[in-house]
Amino acid sequence: MAPLLPTIHDPSALRQLDRTQLKQLADEVRSCVLDNVSRTGGHLSSNLGTVELTVALHHVFNTPHDRLVWDVGHQTYPHKILTGRRERMPSLRQIGGISGFPQRTESEYDTFGTAHSSTSISAALGMALAARLKGEDRHAVAIIGDGAMTAGMAFEALNNAGVQDCKLLVILNDNDMSISPPVGALNRYLAQLMSGNFYAAAKNVGKTVLRKAPPLFELAKRLEQHAKGMVVPATLFEQFGFNYVGPIDGHDLDSLVPTLENLKHLHGPQFLHVVTKKGQGYKLAEADPVAYHGPSKFDPAIGLVKPATAPKQTFTQVFGHWLCDMAAQDSRLIGITPAMREGSGLVEFEQRFPERYHDVGIAEQHAVTFAAGLACEGLKPVVAIYSTFLQRAYDQMIHDVAIQKLPVVFALDRAGLVGADGATHAGAYDIAFIRCIPNMSLACPADEAECRQLLSSAFAQDHPCAVRYPRGAGAGVPTKPGLEALPFGKGELRRQGRRIAILAFGTLLYPALTAAEALDATVLNMRWVKPLDVDLLLQTAATHDCIVTLEEGSIMGGAGSAVAEALQAAGVQRPVLQLGLPDRFIEHGDPAKLLAGIGLDAAGIERSIRERFGVAEAANTRLSAGKTRPGVM
Amino acid sequence: MAPLLPTIHDPSALRQLDRTQLKQLADEVRSCVLDNVSRTGGHLSSNLGTVELTVALHHVFNTPHDRLVWDVGHQTYPHKILTGRRERMPSLRQIGGISGFPQRTESEYDTFGTAHSSTSISAALGMALAARLKGEDRHAVAIIGDGAMTAGMAFEALNNAGVQDCKLLVILNDNDMSISPPVGALNRYLAQLMSGNFYAAAKNVGKTVLRKAPPLFELAKRLEQHAKGMVVPATLFEQFGFNYVGPIDGHDLDSLVPTLENLKHLHGPQFLHVVTKKGQGYKLAEADPVAYHGPSKFDPAIGLVKPATAPKQTFTQVFGHWLCDMAAQDSRLIGITPAMREGSGLVEFEQRFPERYHDVGIAEQHAVTFAAGLACEGLKPVVAIYSTFLQRAYDQMIHDVAIQKLPVVFALDRAGLVGADGATHAGAYDIAFIRCIPNMSLACPADEAECRQLLSSAFAQDHPCAVRYPRGAGAGVPTKPGLEALPFGKGELRRQGRRIAILAFGTLLYPALTAAEALDATVLNMRWVKPLDVDLLLQTAATHDCIVTLEEGSIMGGAGSAVAEALQAAGVQRPVLQLGLPDRFIEHGDPAKLLAGIGLDAAGIERSIRERFGVAEAANTRLSAGKTRPGVM
Repeated sequence: MAPLLPTIHDPSALRQLDRTQLKQLADEVRSCVLDNVSRTGGHLSSNLGTVELTVALHHVFNTPHDRLVWDVGHQTYPHKILTGRRERMPSLRQIGGISGFPQRTESEYDTFGTAHSSTSISAALGMALAARLKGEDRHAVAIIGDGAMTAGMAFEALNNAGVQDCKLLVILNDNDMSISPPVGALNRYLAQLMSGNFYAAAKNVGKTVLRKAPPLFELAKRLEQHAKGMVVPATLFEQFGFNYVGPIDGHDLDSLVPTLENLKHLHGPQFLHVVTKKGQGYKLAEADPVAYHGPSKFDPAIGLVKPATAPKQTFTQVFGHWLCDMAAQDSRLIGITPAMREGSGLVEFEQRFPERYHDVGIAEQHAVTFAAGLACEGLKPVVAIYSTFLQRAYDQMIHDVAIQKLPVVFALDRAGLVGADGATHAGAYDIAFIRCIPNMSLACPADEAECRQLLSSAFAQDHPCAVRYPRGAGAGVPTKPGLEALPFGKGELRRQGRRIAILAFGTLLYPALTAAEALDATVLNMRWVKPLDVDLLLQTAATHDCIVTLEEGSIMGGAGSAVAEALQAAGVQRPVLQLGLPDRFIEHGDPAKLLAGIGLDAAGIERSIRERFGVAEAANTRLSAGKTRPGVM
Repeated sequence: MAPLLPTIHDPSALRQLDRTQLKQLADEVRSCVLDNVSRTGGHLSSNLGTVELTVALHHVFNTPHDRLVWDVGHQTYPHKILTGRRERMPSLRQIGGISGFPQRTESEYDTFGTAHSSTSISAALGMALAARLKGEDRHAVAIIGDGAMTAGMAFEALNNAGVQDCKLLVILNDNDMSISPPVGALNRYLAQLMSGNFYAAAKNVGKTVLRKAPPLFELAKRLEQHAKGMVVPATLFEQFGFNYVGPIDGHDLDSLVPTLENLKHLHGPQFLHVVTKKGQGYKLAEADPVAYHGPSKFDPAIGLVKPATAPKQTFTQVFGHWLCDMAAQDSRLIGITPAMREGSGLVEFEQRFPERYHDVGIAEQHAVTFAAGLACEGLKPVVAIYSTFLQRAYDQMIHDVAIQKLPVVFALDRAGLVGADGATHAGAYDIAFIRCIPNMSLACPADEAECRQLLSSAFAQDHPCAVRYPRGAGAGVPTKPGLEALPFGKGELRRQGRRIAILAFGTLLYPALTAAEALDATVLNMRWVKPLDVDLLLQTAATHDCIVTLEEGSIMGGAGSAVAEALQAAGVQRPVLQLGLPDRFIEHGDPAKLLAGIGLDAAGIERSIRERFGVAEAANTRLSAGKTRPGVM
């Protein structure tokens, strides 16, 4: 058979194919995904699981006129391949290349940018109601995973959508596995109902019940719905006002295509339950979809192999070890994650302390208030949460934790730029949005050893405290085995120089030290954004002409602003150069290159300081402008 | 009968009473609530509705050893009266008095501070699991309204709680009315099922179905659950793993007490559905619970009366009128509220533009992403939301609106201090948490006329824009009828003075003008926090020695920080005095007194400037220190 994929430049060509050709096309798309991801790295299991669904959706619906909204969006590689971006797949998640998520600026087929879960129903409902209001005949389709369905936001949207008269289709892509195995009552219920024989037997019982029910006219419809509810998860979704259809096999185009065709012609909000398998079609990923969730480059014939040399310890691992060690010492410690067991480094903790481990599902709001409830009873909860996911629980942090001054520790992973995942995952705002909250403290360790120590410092407080640390590895400073804390709210002098003082908040301390050599600048490792070490700041301001602040966070409202505020409050006038993330969203790409691109590597820091404070370029300076220093970050 | 209430100094006395005495006590508590609220103002309807439930809970449970967590908390006056605070009720919501919400610092019976909805199940689950872990034999009870149940956070908590083995009781206080009539599929479903005859008839059918069902052992239990689901809202909550009981009459102590006693001895998470009536026992409030939701002082014998003189126009009303006028002119405008139709001024808009009005329920996250979906299709959504409620949708504002640069207008009511509702409702952080987000703009009108104009300015942008305005009335500047916009990102000179320049952001412009008279200071009305009018700032800095910034928002990261950042970025050294909200939570009380207490009235502003910049006190200055200027705010 001649390959079909090279002939599909957009979905209109796909809509001309017959069912047999669609199956061939799906196989080619699957190969294309595996081929590309094994070369670039990226999300794999989720994309192998959505191949047939993507083919069927573009075949049945008139995209881009009809709107597809992909929840989370890390399952959209097949969609990208089929909507004119096949040849750009080798540039996936690299600077200037295509994004690993849908982006409105990238393609008209990407109707809504996603990356955090559970937004798709809300967005698709907006689109569907807009079409109704504008008199445009189009469908809006939200495709959402079973894990994403545990987030409250999805329920808010279902509750609002069920009563609307519009062309909305919600597809539950039930792969029985979100990023870590899903948890909670809803998932247990779904799993239980879907399990083979029980489903088949119960279905027949349901019919029997219906036949024997008294023929009360006004009860018939509800009775039918609930008889259905006995055997499929219909009840829950039908209670929200949706017409539930399913479950069907999401890898079977002979089920998918006719069902979608039928649904297109039904009135009111529709709900289709499809069952797919993450990693489908690639045996290694099917066997271990977690490992193949987001692999780096690998040889598909061999699969993932352990690197010959041990990789550098990541901050996530530092946190995971600290958590276990502190839990062993203090029985009050409780570890909480909103569905990020692997990503947040809690695998060992769960194994060793199952009673004190809580994966609450994709439910950041609940995670934080649940922690507050535990803290009320004298326990010491540690909420392990990515910086951007904390944005989902901001109000809960303010109301339930900070106002009540409860000793909850927030371990903020992925603070700063994250690389391949791009702007949506960059923890750029936590310094600004946390430091304005009374009773909160915020530490930013410069390296692995400090990360462990500052976690201990945070845990020792009787008020809420956040510790922010970046994705991946740092300078490689080995951690000490004990649980020694660093002093609360105190920074340290790291290099004594002249005239210029660089105040580093976090891991940019290391490029700052390099830049300071060339400039003979003083370097302070500030360690705490809040409380700020005002004594150290004022001593430094008294003996230096210029202050430079440095942080991997937004300049607006960030740690540099805290320094400027403190100087003004003390009535001290000094020029302050604030270096950090600029007021724009930073796209995906290699983190070191991204940092260099915004002047946050050693050369960039040196250059910015020379430009602002008129320091002449020394002859043969070690850091020529524009040159990046490999290995610094 | 001798009054019982004066003898109840804490719930242990209440637990000695018999059923007849409990009924008498409930009547006395109801009178006490009405008597006090009619004198102090405060929440009324919700408190009249929870009298019997409160009496029953303290009678059955061993409080404070057992934990009661009241969702939202504006229904806790009976609880306060019965837990030793009866004599402090006249001080309700006043400076130094008791709070209108539960507060952990106020009483050991207030186990969890609440004020925003839907947190109670999460917090109670935390307490219940803490008890299990610590081996303490205690119950945790969450009491949550049907409106609060529409928030996603409540679902996140149910989903997590249903699979836990702990002593948790969730009580759904179904009064069929949250603050505005509840919306959405869930509420329609509850209402439908609860309606009289249908319920009774269906219950019998359910039994018949059960009798005729085939006796398949493995299906029996599920069948029973679903037969139950046909006739009561059990299904939904049982699907989450709860044992559902109810509905029962929440004003009938003969139902409440034995049911609660029974539930106390059941194993695993329990769910009790009680039906209550807001305003119960006071005919006027029963007839119009919305009007009596949060009245000011009134004569209970007469009820609420319209004030003889028309009250000053509030910012909320200015927004409501603008919304209708702009909607009449631009058919793309869509108005969205998360269950705050009255509070946000959308009553007229709903009547005039029902097709373009969306009350999405207590669902801030969904509200914002839904708006983003509409904006994708070329519509112009206006999200009317309190400043603190936007904290619930922070991630959605960043991801779904700002990253995609969609033209959504956020109309932020209750920005700044709010008075009687206290710290939980004070919109203190929006400036800090919004201005760090790329693509966002933020305006802060100084008065009513500007509020209307800046809303028009925001609406004219093709990117997201927030307009923040305070609770209540402002300086009283009449609005102009047209829809004229003010220039984007531009401030204005309001008073030319010497040496000192006061940069006012928002309504504090007026006390600033008063203070400036005494100081002969320049006053700028900045209007926009972002983009900041840097040209105006630099011109001013060039001609003045000292800069004062003024805002009703947190100093940390606020508008003053934006000014300091901009001066530093331009390399301009000037002393900046940042006046605004301090780094602590401000309790409830009269707003003018609260502002004076933190130096944000005219006298306080003048005093702070004199102290910082060494301006000598003039003889016979019009503003003696400490004296507040009535009418300025």
